[in-house]
This record gives sequence, C-alpha cells and structure tokens, in this order.
Amino acid sequence: MTVAAEFEAANKQYVAQFDKGDLPLPPGRKVTVVTCMDARIDPAKALGLAEGDAHVIRNAGGRASEALRSVLISQQLLGTREIVLIHHTDCGMLTFTDEVLRNKVKEELKENVDHVSFLPFPDLKQSVVEDVALLEKSGLVLDVPITGYIYDVKTGAITKV
Amino acid sequence: MTVAAEFEAANKQYVAQFDKGDLPLPPGRKVTVVTCMDARIDPAKALGLAEGDAHVIRNAGGRASEALRSVLISQQLLGTREIVLIHHTDCGMLTFTDEVLRNKVKEELKENVDHVSFLPFPDLKQSVVEDVALLEKSGLVLDVPITGYIYDVKTGAITKV
Repeated sequence: MTVAAEFEAANKQYVAQFDKGDLPLPPGRKVTVVTCMDARIDPAKALGLAEGDAHVIRNAGGRASEALRSVLISQQLLGTREIVLIHHTDCGMLTFTDEVLRNKVKEELKENVDHVSFLPFPDLKQSVVEDVALLEKSGLVLDVPITGYIYDVKTGAITKV
Repeated sequence: MTVAAEFEAANKQYVAQFDKGDLPLPPGRKVTVVTCMDARIDPAKALGLAEGDAHVIRNAGGRASEALRSVLISQQLLGTREIVLIHHTDCGMLTFTDEVLRNKVKEELKENVDHVSFLPFPDLKQSVVEDVALLEKSGLVLDVPITGYIYDVKTGAITKV
C-alpha cells in the first residue's frame, strides 16, 4: 500500500468535518512563513495557524534564496506584508557539503550536478541571519517586518535570532 | 503588534503540551509531499500527518521544478521513497502570466525580472500532469511511486489526477 492511498483514507475524515470552504485566496493574517521541509515541524500547530491565515513556503533548509519567487508572488499578488523565517536545530543542511552531495549524485545517479548548490549551511544561527538579510536587501521584497527564528525540535519552541 | 509576536505567544502554548522531542531526522513514513504555499491548505490536517511523518515542500503553485533540490536531498540523504504532489483549485498561479507580473515588478519595484519565470499555469489538471512527469523523467529523482492530486479548497478533498 502506498502512503498516497493512506493519505486518501485520512483525507476522507478531514473532508467529513471540513467547514473552511469559504475562505478567500489572500492570507487573512497577511504573513508569509518560510521554513524547512523537515518532517518534525508542523508550522500550523507550532505557530497557531488556522486554514486561511498565512502562506507557508517550505524547502530543504528553509532557504530564502529559493523562496524568493514565492515571496514575491505572495506580496505582489496576494497582499502579504510580513515575513517570518524559521530554521531549526538538528537540520539536515548542517550535515553535508555541496562537494559531498555532488559526488554522491555523480556516483549513484550518474548525473553531473557540479553547477548546482544544494544550499547547505555549517552554522544554524548564521544561516538565519544571512537569510533574513537576503530578504531585507532584495529589491524584489517589500520593506516589511522580517523576523528570524530557530525552532528547537526537542522542545517545539521558537527563539528569535 | 507584528504577527511574529502573535506566533511567539501561540508557540508557548504548543511548547506547553509538546511531547515529540525524540523524533528522528528521517521522515517516518518515507514520503515527500510537494504542494502550494496557499494559506487555505493545511497538509498535516488534510492528509493525516503527525510530526515526524513526512517532508513537506511548499512553494507558489507547488511546482516540481523548484522542488527538485529539496526532493533530491529528501531521497539521497533522508531516505524518502515516495512523492505526493498536490495542486489545488482557485490557485493564484491560474490568475496571471509571466508578462503581467514582470511588468508589475518593473513598474512598482523598478526591477527587471524579464529573465525570471514565476511558473504560473493556465490549466490546473495539466499542471499536475506536467509536474508529475517532470519528477518521473528527472535523472535526479529515484524511480519511486509519484502520485498527483488536486485539492479542492471548497471541500478539503483531494482527487487523484
């Protein structure tokens, strides 16, 4: 059985109690959250988000550079006016370098990705500082409040950087 | 008051009842979900995900091309072996073209983004078909089950494409 089939079964239960069918497209709380794809993070539960509240952008590491397209669309077309960026402890991005992953891909997938950066980082706090700065300095991002946090996977707590 | 401050208050309540501090880094259900940043979608609630279950990648539209870096990391470093891709009704990506957004950015932000594609799509079902095909054909993605769905924001239901 695929996980997809399990998702279909779980979704039936969600639909049976669903009462959010009239929400507008623009996020109600006018905020965009950028965070990691990490399985241990549930942004809605951790931040108190209901359906309709916020855009949630997630990628490996919660990297701002890759989120730029989505942030621009969020602000220019859907009216968000605040950004919250959250990286987290025990992140996979702390565990490798581009060189290591490029070599693994070359050996195992027979693909050359020497031109790709997988955006790992060696220092968690610094990665938050740099990604907030990237958003603040980008000419594509509006001058709005941008706050950076570290999420602790051991406690569920966010701490402002 | 910023939304960030509201998130800090909500997070204190999450931490007070948090009991997921011992979860491993690799996703327990070995699956990666790729979906849109749309505020109305709560992937965990809609699919029955608990903390630790699945990688969740989200961007404007749930586009596979932008998710490739994260999917590769998910598979090569963290052992996921299935992908579920979900686009949704009433998506913002159905409402504009690259030309329209490029002109808006040029006029309002004074930035030239003529080289950027914002990855909009004119047909929802086709966008799922194309993004599943992109993942299936990519030499960077393992030969694993990949299932595409449309999420209906009016009902909360996912329908396989």
